[in-house]
Formats: sequence, C-alpha cells, structure tokens
Amino acid sequence: MAQAPVPEIVVGRLPIYLRMLEFLKKEGKPITSSQELAERLGLSSAQIRKDLSYFGEFGKQGTGYNIDYLQRQLRQILHVDRVWDMLLVGAGDLGRALAHYQGFVPQGFRLVAIFDNAPKKIGTPVGNLVVLDIAELPRFVREKKIRVAILAVPAESASSVAAMLVESGIQAILNYAPITLNVPSYVKVYHIDPVVGLQSMAYYL
Amino acid sequence: MAQAPVPEIVVGRLPIYLRMLEFLKKEGKPITSSQELAERLGLSSAQIRKDLSYFGEFGKQGTGYNIDYLQRQLRQILHVDRVWDMLLVGAGDLGRALAHYQGFVPQGFRLVAIFDNAPKKIGTPVGNLVVLDIAELPRFVREKKIRVAILAVPAESASSVAAMLVESGIQAILNYAPITLNVPSYVKVYHIDPVVGLQSMAYYL
Repeated sequence: MAQAPVPEIVVGRLPIYLRMLEFLKKEGKPITSSQELAERLGLSSAQIRKDLSYFGEFGKQGTGYNIDYLQRQLRQILHVDRVWDMLLVGAGDLGRALAHYQGFVPQGFRLVAIFDNAPKKIGTPVGNLVVLDIAELPRFVREKKIRVAILAVPAESASSVAAMLVESGIQAILNYAPITLNVPSYVKVYHIDPVVGLQSMAYYL
Repeated sequence: MAQAPVPEIVVGRLPIYLRMLEFLKKEGKPITSSQELAERLGLSSAQIRKDLSYFGEFGKQGTGYNIDYLQRQLRQILHVDRVWDMLLVGAGDLGRALAHYQGFVPQGFRLVAIFDNAPKKIGTPVGNLVVLDIAELPRFVREKKIRVAILAVPAESASSVAAMLVESGIQAILNYAPITLNVPSYVKVYHIDPVVGLQSMAYYL
C-alpha cells in the first residue's frame, strides 16, 4: 500500500524541531520528551508526537527521545545529513549579510557562489567569494549541478532572475524578494517576508 | 456566546492573502475568487473560504471577492489599517538592509530608530536614521510607546537584547537571530530563519 504523502506543514515543522533539539543539546541535555519540546515551542505534545509518527518510532513511552538519535533521524529525513551547494543572487546589503552568515554549513548548506548584474559589484570580494557576472549563472549551475539558490534581488528583477534559475536547473529557491514567484510546481519556493511576520503579530497588538 | 479564538495558523495566512490581493490588483484585476487565490498560492479554495469565514462574509457565491474591499477588511482585521512605529536593534549588514527596505510603510510599519552597542557604529547614518546607543533604548521605547521591534543582532547577544526589549514594553519581536527566544507568553515572536526554509525544501530534493 502506498504511503500517504506527508503534509507540507508537517515537513515545515521538522527543521524547527531540529533547531530546538540543538538548543537543548547545548544546554547539556541527552534526552527530551514531546512535552518538553511542546512547552519550549508553544505547540501541543500530541501535535509533535503525531508529526514524528509520520516517519517512524523515535522514542519509547515514558523514556522520551534520545536527542542525538532524533537529530540524526530528522537530518536524514530532511536530506540534510549531507551538505548542499547553493548559490546566491544579489550582492546588496542583504546578499552580503547572507554571505557572511555562519549558520548555513552546520545545517546542510554551503554557499559556493554569489552573482550580480551590476558591473561595479562583479569581481569584488564578499566574504570568501568574489561576485560573479549573472550571465555566467546558467553554465555554473549546470556544470556544478547546483539545486538550491537564494534570491536576494529587488522585486523588479526577481521574476526574470527566478525564470533564469529554474531554466538552469535550480529546484529550491529561498526568496527574499517581496513578490510571489510563478515557477513550475516541481520547483520549491520558500518566501522570507518580514511583512508577513510583522502583520501576523500586529493582529495580537 | 464567546467566539472561539482564531487559530494562529489562520492569522498567519491573512498577510499572505493580503500580499496576493495587492499582486492581483497590480495586474489590474478588480475582483478575484477563492479559486484564483488558491491556484496562485498553492492552497485549496476550501481552505481559503474557511480561513476568511472566521472573520465574516467577504464575497457572494458566484460573484467572488471585490479586491479593494477584501484588502481593507483584512488590513483592519490585522490592525495594519494604521502605521506602527518600530525600532531595529543591530546595525550590521542585515540591519542596514532592513533599514533601507522600502516595503514596510505601505504595509503598516515605519522604522523610527536603529540601535547598536558598538561605539564605532553609534552616531553613524543608516538611511534617514542615525544609529543610537542601545543604552538609550528603554527610555526611547517608553517615551515613544513603541510596541514592535526587529532583532538583527548575533546569536550571542540576542537573549539579553530580547530581555531588554520586553522589559521596556515591546510586545512583538521580528527575530532574525538564529536562536529561540524565551519571552513571556504575552509577547509575540516571529522567527525569520533561512535554515528552516532551506531544510524544509531539502526534504523534496
């Protein structure tokens, strides 16, 4: 019998569980429980147990979860028990902040190239990288078999850059541009939008 | 009879509907439907109708939603039919990118101050603002009655800055630091974490 697909919203919570497990580990804990995770994350423990049950049995009733083991399993489920090469388009303030961010590699992602179309930016250093001409992006993606990209360009150019990314073979786009991208359904887009966060909090003000 | 509280996940989708309505309006459309919104957003139309039904009746069967009207209603529901003053802590690359972002004011938020603790940054201009000493933050928040803050500081200092924000009277924090903040339950935190986005997409790679 075919397994039912896991709802996207459940998949979206796994990285949050993973982040909390790392946090608890730094506190020196070897074991946690769905109750502890629930309290720390503001979810219900039943929700957490249900989410994890899509993927198997990770703890025993009464003994909780071994943090190391659950981390390894979640990393495997999410395909981040390896490191994905990724590229970044846009060498503005935001692109530079992302290029300097130290948190990607430990979580399974390594920034290997940064592209821009501004002649005065091309060839300049950003962290350990040098900004490349966006005209070279398609060949770069194909040759290096890159699947993941971060889009940090202004709204006006986001659609055309996204089309170029998809055509070159990119399958996952972390989109910082304040615009909804139209991409084929096999391409995943995760939209990072500060306004969505601010507006959903304003409801409670 | 008391109304049931609206689930947070429903509230979290309203800003996404609002963003799509603006997008459709820019395309010149005066009217839309739950079917069109669903297709554009990758949701089901039943979900959209159910979400909106928490707040009232916004369209008639067969005639769809008047975009202007639904926008006004959603902005009112989310309390962004006004402009909230907000402050930013952290004048690094990310802080500067956020300070230059033009998309806040049209969506109900105006950045009125930027704080840092680094002597070489304090007093320097960022956009239209000048970086203030973080020691002045508590008085500033109380005097100006600020309720909303963006946290763009390194992980090491995020907890202590968050505590200072909460103690000063901040009730909504957009958190860019890669750490889960422990704040009282009346304070809302929206965590912007690129790793969560990347990892949830990696599941599908």
